Amino acid sequence: MAVYTEVTDEALRAFLAEYGIGELQAYRGIAEGVENSNYALKTTQGDFILTLYEKRVDPAELPWFLGLMRHLAAQGLSCPEPVPGRDGAALRQLAGRPAAICTFLPGFWPRRVRPSHCAPLGDALARLHAAGMGFPATRKNGLGAEAWAPLLDRCRADGEPGLIAELDAALAAILAEWPAPGALPIGHIHADLFPDNVFFLEDAGRRPRISGLIDFYFACTDMLAYDIAIVLNAWCFESDYQFNVTKARAILSAYGARRPLTPAEWAALPVLCRGAAMRFLLTRLYDWVNTPPGAMVTRKDPLEYLHRLRFFAHARDAAAIGG
Amino acid sequence: MAVYTEVTDEALRAFLAEYGIGELQAYRGIAEGVENSNYALKTTQGDFILTLYEKRVDPAELPWFLGLMRHLAAQGLSCPEPVPGRDGAALRQLAGRPAAICTFLPGFWPRRVRPSHCAPLGDALARLHAAGMGFPATRKNGLGAEAWAPLLDRCRADGEPGLIAELDAALAAILAEWPAPGALPIGHIHADLFPDNVFFLEDAGRRPRISGLIDFYFACTDMLAYDIAIVLNAWCFESDYQFNVTKARAILSAYGARRPLTPAEWAALPVLCRGAAMRFLLTRLYDWVNTPPGAMVTRKDPLEYLHRLRFFAHARDAAAIGG
Repeated sequence: MAVYTEVTDEALRAFLAEYGIGELQAYRGIAEGVENSNYALKTTQGDFILTLYEKRVDPAELPWFLGLMRHLAAQGLSCPEPVPGRDGAALRQLAGRPAAICTFLPGFWPRRVRPSHCAPLGDALARLHAAGMGFPATRKNGLGAEAWAPLLDRCRADGEPGLIAELDAALAAILAEWPAPGALPIGHIHADLFPDNVFFLEDAGRRPRISGLIDFYFACTDMLAYDIAIVLNAWCFESDYQFNVTKARAILSAYGARRPLTPAEWAALPVLCRGAAMRFLLTRLYDWVNTPPGAMVTRKDPLEYLHRLRFFAHARDAAAIGG
Repeated sequence: MAVYTEVTDEALRAFLAEYGIGELQAYRGIAEGVENSNYALKTTQGDFILTLYEKRVDPAELPWFLGLMRHLAAQGLSCPEPVPGRDGAALRQLAGRPAAICTFLPGFWPRRVRPSHCAPLGDALARLHAAGMGFPATRKNGLGAEAWAPLLDRCRADGEPGLIAELDAALAAILAEWPAPGALPIGHIHADLFPDNVFFLEDAGRRPRISGLIDFYFACTDMLAYDIAIVLNAWCFESDYQFNVTKARAILSAYGARRPLTPAEWAALPVLCRGAAMRFLLTRLYDWVNTPPGAMVTRKDPLEYLHRLRFFAHARDAAAIGG
């Protein structure tokens, strides 16, 4: 269930009157995304995406997210660009929710990742990191390393004891090796660059090219290499949990062509990958034990990330994961 | 949850190669409709809707539905028009499901029905009935009057006893008065013309006009006035279950301006309205008692239709319901 908030046509037309983007021609709820309500809008001036921010997003943080997206778009990165109303404000209210209209991006996300997606992905990630550099405000990663122990504690009572014990040990090992503040280059990271947040266009017989990156609502200021670690977790495992090192090499090599990793980043890459696996495992586990079985949301299986965590725990160095 | 079947981008591009409608630019699952999976497609040639038919639709009946839609569109009615592939076939296979691409209709359905929607609606219903006349093949109404007693029987064990007794009595009274075959004019009816199946466009300061009718997958060959009775049920009750006779008059008067009702149709209108209320009450009740509480579908409250049934049971004649 991706549309949580129903918007009436009257409310939407009144809302659109605050913009200079033409008359409403059509709108449809989009059955994707799990955090916010999204509508595809068509006006006499073109296509747009309307997002109503639901309770998982802190309204106080929305100006930062929208500001980052505007900055990235101004740097030439293809991402949804917040459209300001006639008064200049992009963040507004609709149906009792904070709401914004962004530009529509063509393309579609790859349901099955192929090696040919991976070099464009690595290149886009490096371009994202470079484009973010001039954006002055920072945002702490609310799901960063210091959040993991409290999150694990909140799963302790309802989690399977063997699993909790394995995670306690794995987390202690990760935190013992975690890079000290300042040890690795910092910047604005996407922090959720899964395949459903990367749009591609594929002309017949040509290699896929990226048409845009979406969903910046986990973006934050953190180690750039941690974003790479998230991408390796999200893009390089096959459905049988095997790590596809060809995909990882393509990502790392394309990224490195734009921004070569420092020796410290290469050395830290395995523990960053374990940390990224831990982060997604823990939020999924938390949702799993705290979602009533009858709730109308799709719970994502946390154990997919246990397999990833175990894989990375056996990676001796960056070479073992495509470096 | 409106998208039941996930379509990969590779499968979709292979599917689109069978058509001459350009290259895929974007596709998004639409969070509307409860019977089928719908995707909004954008190609280099424009917007389309892709429908994958799920198990509630009998594949053997799809050629009739698509043929009717093609016929109606050829008569100038604005409805989704099935797009044939290069081989001429509109009904194809995708992701293991029967699938078709139809033209995209602009407009949006009214979340809150206003009286100004009702005259355009009555007019469009009469135009639909006229446009259907030349389509030779017929389809029996699988949810017509003879289906109601068996449906009620299948709810008997799990329904609340007081409700079942009331429905037994009401159904017996309806069937005793039901028009005999041939007594009323017959034609192809939509049979599900609820507000979410009627798209309007509203230019600033102008009255709403209909931009199209959608979702013909309950269409069948039945009494034309029964389609009017369904529309009165679907459009004329306020949220407090009060019948808005102003809306009903606007619908009936606009319909009658194109096709005056026969005296027999006027006389039968109250019982047809009770029958239509019974039909939606029973299918909703059946879904209610047969859907596990944890299932990821929205169950519609059957009791909304008990209020409608009771209202129409007290209507002495057509004048009481806007005639």
